[in-house]
Amino acid sequence: MDWNQLLAGRTSLMRRSAVRELLRLTNRPGMISFAGGLPAPELFPVAEVRAAADQLLDQHGSKVLQYGETEGVAELRDWVATSLSRPGLTLSRDHVLITTGSQQGLDLIGRVLIDPNDKLALENPTYLAALSAWRPWQPQFLPLTCDEDGLTSDAIAKVPGLRPKLLYTIPNFQNPTGVTLALERRRQLIARLAGSGTLIVEDDPYGELRYRGEALPGLLELAGGPEPQLLRLGSFSKVLAPGLRVGFVVGPADLIEKMALAKQALDLHTATFNQWLVLELLRNGVVDRNLSKLRAAYGERCSAMLEALENHLRGAATWTRPEGGMFVFARLGNGVSATTLLAKAVERGVAFVPGGEFHVDGSGEQTLRLNFSHASPEKIPEGIRRIAEALAGLS
Amino acid sequence: MDWNQLLAGRTSLMRRSAVRELLRLTNRPGMISFAGGLPAPELFPVAEVRAAADQLLDQHGSKVLQYGETEGVAELRDWVATSLSRPGLTLSRDHVLITTGSQQGLDLIGRVLIDPNDKLALENPTYLAALSAWRPWQPQFLPLTCDEDGLTSDAIAKVPGLRPKLLYTIPNFQNPTGVTLALERRRQLIARLAGSGTLIVEDDPYGELRYRGEALPGLLELAGGPEPQLLRLGSFSKVLAPGLRVGFVVGPADLIEKMALAKQALDLHTATFNQWLVLELLRNGVVDRNLSKLRAAYGERCSAMLEALENHLRGAATWTRPEGGMFVFARLGNGVSATTLLAKAVERGVAFVPGGEFHVDGSGEQTLRLNFSHASPEKIPEGIRRIAEALAGLS
Repeated sequence: MDWNQLLAGRTSLMRRSAVRELLRLTNRPGMISFAGGLPAPELFPVAEVRAAADQLLDQHGSKVLQYGETEGVAELRDWVATSLSRPGLTLSRDHVLITTGSQQGLDLIGRVLIDPNDKLALENPTYLAALSAWRPWQPQFLPLTCDEDGLTSDAIAKVPGLRPKLLYTIPNFQNPTGVTLALERRRQLIARLAGSGTLIVEDDPYGELRYRGEALPGLLELAGGPEPQLLRLGSFSKVLAPGLRVGFVVGPADLIEKMALAKQALDLHTATFNQWLVLELLRNGVVDRNLSKLRAAYGERCSAMLEALENHLRGAATWTRPEGGMFVFARLGNGVSATTLLAKAVERGVAFVPGGEFHVDGSGEQTLRLNFSHASPEKIPEGIRRIAEALAGLS
Repeated sequence: MDWNQLLAGRTSLMRRSAVRELLRLTNRPGMISFAGGLPAPELFPVAEVRAAADQLLDQHGSKVLQYGETEGVAELRDWVATSLSRPGLTLSRDHVLITTGSQQGLDLIGRVLIDPNDKLALENPTYLAALSAWRPWQPQFLPLTCDEDGLTSDAIAKVPGLRPKLLYTIPNFQNPTGVTLALERRRQLIARLAGSGTLIVEDDPYGELRYRGEALPGLLELAGGPEPQLLRLGSFSKVLAPGLRVGFVVGPADLIEKMALAKQALDLHTATFNQWLVLELLRNGVVDRNLSKLRAAYGERCSAMLEALENHLRGAATWTRPEGGMFVFARLGNGVSATTLLAKAVERGVAFVPGGEFHVDGSGEQTLRLNFSHASPEKIPEGIRRIAEALAGLS
C-alpha cells in the first residue's frame, strides 16, 4: 500500500512523493483530511462554469479548441496586466505569461534561471513543490528564518551578503505556515535587494483569500513593477478551480520572453479552452462573486480550526493564527515526531502533512501543516479531536 | 516585426522560435498557410464538445474541477490501456501517464532520461519541438538516413553499434516528411534493438489519420508491449482538438512511475476537466465519428496538394506522397534556398516551414514542409501556384 511505503520510505523519496501520496489518501471514505491543499469542491461555481463553457463553445467554438500562442491568450494576458496595474505601476501583456497552473511558473524559473550550485534564498519552511521543481538543477538552498510576521528583519538584512540568484517568498498566508509578511518587512526586503542582482520571486496564490485584517500591498506593488528584478506568480486554482490548471507569471518583459521560449518545449501552450473559460469568468464577475463566498466559508473554517486547536491541543502544541489562505501550522510541544503522530492519526481517520517535508534544513520534525479549506466546518473540530487523541496516546 | 527578425535572426534563435513565430504568421488576413501543423478548425466537433462539457459539469461538476492525481484520471488511463491492448499485448493503467499534450511526453523524456552527451538517434529530418525539448540536456543527436519508406535498412543496422540511449521515430506520416516506416523495417528495428539497452520512442500523433493504403502495426504492437524498452507517445490533439492539451505516454510501468514523479513538479497534473472531456468524447463515440470525417476531408486536401504540386512544380521540385497525416515534404531542384523562397512566398500571401529547421545536421536547405490539413481544398491549388510563382521569380 502506498501509504505504508511512504512512511517506511527514505527521506528523499518521501519528499518527492509526499504531496502526491497524500492527495490519494484524502479519497478514503470516512477520512477527515487536513492534508493536501484542496479547495472545497462544494464551493466551485459549477453552474457558472457550465454556462461560460456553453457560451464560449457556442460563440467561438473552433477558436477555443485550436492551438494558441505560447505566451497565452492575448486577452487574458491583457486582463492580468490591467488588473494588477495601478497609479505608478503600469503593466502590459508583454509582462505576462500564462502558465499551466502556477506550478509551471516555478518549473520555468528552474529551466530558465537556475544553474548548478546557484544559491536560492527561501523561507524555511516553504512550499514543497517549489523545492521539487528546482532540485533537478542542483541549486543550493539557503534557508531564511521566519517568525509570526514572516521573514525576520535579521534574515532580510543578511540576504544581500549571501548574493543569492533569487529570493523566493510567499508573502500572504504562506504555505505551509499561514503566516503573512509584515508591511515594514516587505518594504525592508524591497529596499535591501534594490540593485543587488537578486531576483525576487513573489508567489501569491492565496493573496485574495483574506478573512481578517487589512490587505497589504504586494512586493510587486511596493517595487513599482516587475522591472528589473521581480517575478510574481499567480494562479486561478484557489480563486476559481484548480482542475483548469491556469496560472500566470508577471515579470520583466525580457525574462517573460525567455520563459515563453522555454515553455514552448514544455507543452506548446496552456490549454486554449481553459484560458478562455477563465477569462470569461473574470469578465462576467463570477470570479469576484465566488471570492466573496470563499472568504466567508474559509474564514468560518479557519476560525473553527483555531477554536478546535484551543479546545483540544492547548498546552500540547502551539500554532499560527493565519488571517487568510488555507493552512494553520502547528508545533508539538512534547518531543513527539509529527510523522509518528501522523501514522497514529491516520488510524483514527484524520490526515495532515508532517512539517518536516517543507523544511530545507532537516528541521521541523515536530511540526505539522493543517489545511482548513477542504473539510467542512462541522468536521474540523472532530478531526482536531482525533489528532489530540492520537497525540495523547503517544505521550 | 517578428517575421523580419526571424528571417534575419541567427540559426539558433530561428530554430527555437520558428514554429512559434510561424503560428503567429498564419493569422494574417489573406494568407494561405501551409506552415504550422494546425488541424482544420471548421472540422472540430464543437457541438459535441459543448454537449459533453455540459453533461460533465451537470453530473460531476466539482470532481472535474478539482485537483487530480499526477498520473491522470484513472478511467482515462484505463481507456488508453484497453484501446491499445490486443491478443498478446495486455496493458493496464500502470503503463499509462496522461500528459499535457504529447509535447509534455517529450519534455518528460528529457527530464527523466537524458544526461549531457547522451546519444539520441533520430530520423533526419525530424520533429522540431522534440529537438527543442531535449537540447537543454545537451545530448548528442545522431541523425539517421531516411528514404521514401522511412529509416533505411542500413541506418537501422547501424544503430546498435552507435549505442544510443534512445531512438526516436515517428513511424506514421512523419513530421516533417509525411513518410511512413515500411513494415519490414519496423520488424528489423524491433529485432535489432531487442536487448540492446536502447529505448525506442515511438511518437504517433497521426497514426489514425490514414487516407490511403493499409494500416501497419505500430512498434508497440510488434514489440508485444512496452516492457522493457519502448515508449509510445500519443495525443488527442489531431483526432479531437489541440486546444485541450491532452496526450499520453505508454511505457514500462517503472519508467511511467518515474515520469509521473517528474511531472508532479512540472504542472501537478493535466487539467482534470480536459481529461474528463476527452474521456466522455471517446466513450460516446464522438472521437471515432469525427475521425471518419477528418480522414475524408484531409484525404481530399492531401490529394489536392499533390495534384497542385504536379500541376505547378513538376520539374522544379520533388516531393513525398504521404498516405496520411498532415504534411508533404518537398525538395527544390534548382539550388534555391527554401528560406529565401519563403520570404518571397510570404510577399505573395503563402507560408510554409523551411525544411532546414527540422534537420539536425545543418542540411535540408532546399527542402520545405507543406501542411495540407489547415487550408481549404479550394485554396490549396492557389497557394501552391503562388509558391511556384515565387520560385519562378528566383530562378
